[in-house]
Amino acid sequence: MIMAKVIGNVWATRKDDALNGLKFLAVKPMDYCKEGDAPTFIAADIVGAGIGETVLVTKGSSARKVLGKDGIPIDAAIVGIIDMVEVEKAYPE
Amino acid sequence: MIMAKVIGNVWATRKDDALNGLKFLAVKPMDYCKEGDAPTFIAADIVGAGIGETVLVTKGSSARKVLGKDGIPIDAAIVGIIDMVEVEKAYPE
Amino acid sequence: MIMAKVIGNVWATRKDDALNGLKFLAVKPMDYCKEGDAPTFIAADIVGAGIGETVLVTKGSSARKVLGKDGIPIDAAIVGIIDMVEVEKAYPE
Amino acid sequence: MIMAKVIGNVWATRKDDALNGLKFLAVKPMDYCKEGDAPTFIAADIVGAGIGETVLVTKGSSARKVLGKDGIPIDAAIVGIIDMVEVEKAYPE
Amino acid sequence: MIMAKVIGNVWATRKDDALNGLKFLAVKPMDYCKEGDAPTFIAADIVGAGIGETVLVTKGSSARKVLGKDGIPIDAAIVGIIDMVEVEKAYPE
Repeated sequence: MIMAKVIGNVWATRKDDALNGLKFLAVKPMDYCKEGDAPTFIAADIVGAGIGETVLVTKGSSARKVLGKDGIPIDAAIVGIIDMVEVEKAYPE
Repeated sequence: MIMAKVIGNVWATRKDDALNGLKFLAVKPMDYCKEGDAPTFIAADIVGAGIGETVLVTKGSSARKVLGKDGIPIDAAIVGIIDMVEVEKAYPE
Repeated sequence: MIMAKVIGNVWATRKDDALNGLKFLAVKPMDYCKEGDAPTFIAADIVGAGIGETVLVTKGSSARKVLGKDGIPIDAAIVGIIDMVEVEKAYPE
Repeated sequence: MIMAKVIGNVWATRKDDALNGLKFLAVKPMDYCKEGDAPTFIAADIVGAGIGETVLVTKGSSARKVLGKDGIPIDAAIVGIIDMVEVEKAYPE
Repeated sequence: MIMAKVIGNVWATRKDDALNGLKFLAVKPMDYCKEGDAPTFIAADIVGAGIGETVLVTKGSSARKVLGKDGIPIDAAIVGIIDMVEVEKAYPE
């Protein structure tokens, strides 16, 4: 999984029927050890995340597991809100 | 999922039989937070996207879910047309 | 999927039994929008592609769908020969 | 799989129910052949790894296999503690 | 699949029970067209590869297909020993 910041909302009226009712958010990956330059992407949100929150994102086929059925064409899902990451002082960078 | 721009049409006469009838489009990933340099790729289109439109693309095994059957050898599918992405001012870059 | 150029043949005598009879080709990814520097890789060929041809390559679990059975350990397959990619003048780069 | 260093603990109170009871750790990929700059990520731990330990991490759908059931939305799991990697002198870099 | 060089042995005493009996090797990806800088990773070996040999590596869920059962948490497997890659003179770089 990765840690990411929610940066925006995504609207798509015309889409695959299986995606109806899902909320899509734009997220930016975060990295503790360097200036993050990983590209932003879009994830389905199932925990009610808001703009600016730090979230736990699962990618790939595992993202489809969040909704209890395997047939939805999503490849990224916000599966948690991260409260804190405690990094040892010996590994700041 | 990623946001991408449709940039072209792809023709392939000789191909796996399971791909017959599918429309393939060349797409370029877009990124809100930096100059995008992610490589272009090819996605099956199931929502009727046109050149220049901004689309939502699902990759990996999840792309196969768009057609209701799991046996088609595609690894990317356009699953929606993006109307708008509303990014908070605090996260422009 | 990605567009790639077939650049060579691969021989492997000692291999997993499930791979017997498959033809393996070295391919180099192509990109319309920048000088491609994506690494070469090896794909199973099921359409009879030749050296120098431009092909459509499916990666990941979807590559296993080309042979009608899911149990073969391949993660990339050439699924089509690309005749033409028509890119709009507005998106040359 | 990749070799990684455990660098921190991750807390997420609000999360998908299927993730309850799992321990999440922040890990940093390690590379023998160059200065590693791969981004940190978060993995579920099933072997009791501690901060500073070198671990074996499985990613993608295979990560879901560690818990004996396929329905948990994780895409990375610590599956072993690495005791030693013996690299031949001919390939130090 | 990718072509890689076997560069070392990996020992992990404490690990997921499903991994017992598997041999793990550190491998370095090889590229015909540029100086390879892809990161090293760890693959399960099922063909008896040795240090210094050039091997064919399958990644992702397909790696689990090498052992005839889908429940083992590995995401990379050495599936063949490469004898030769014949690259056309027109595509040396």
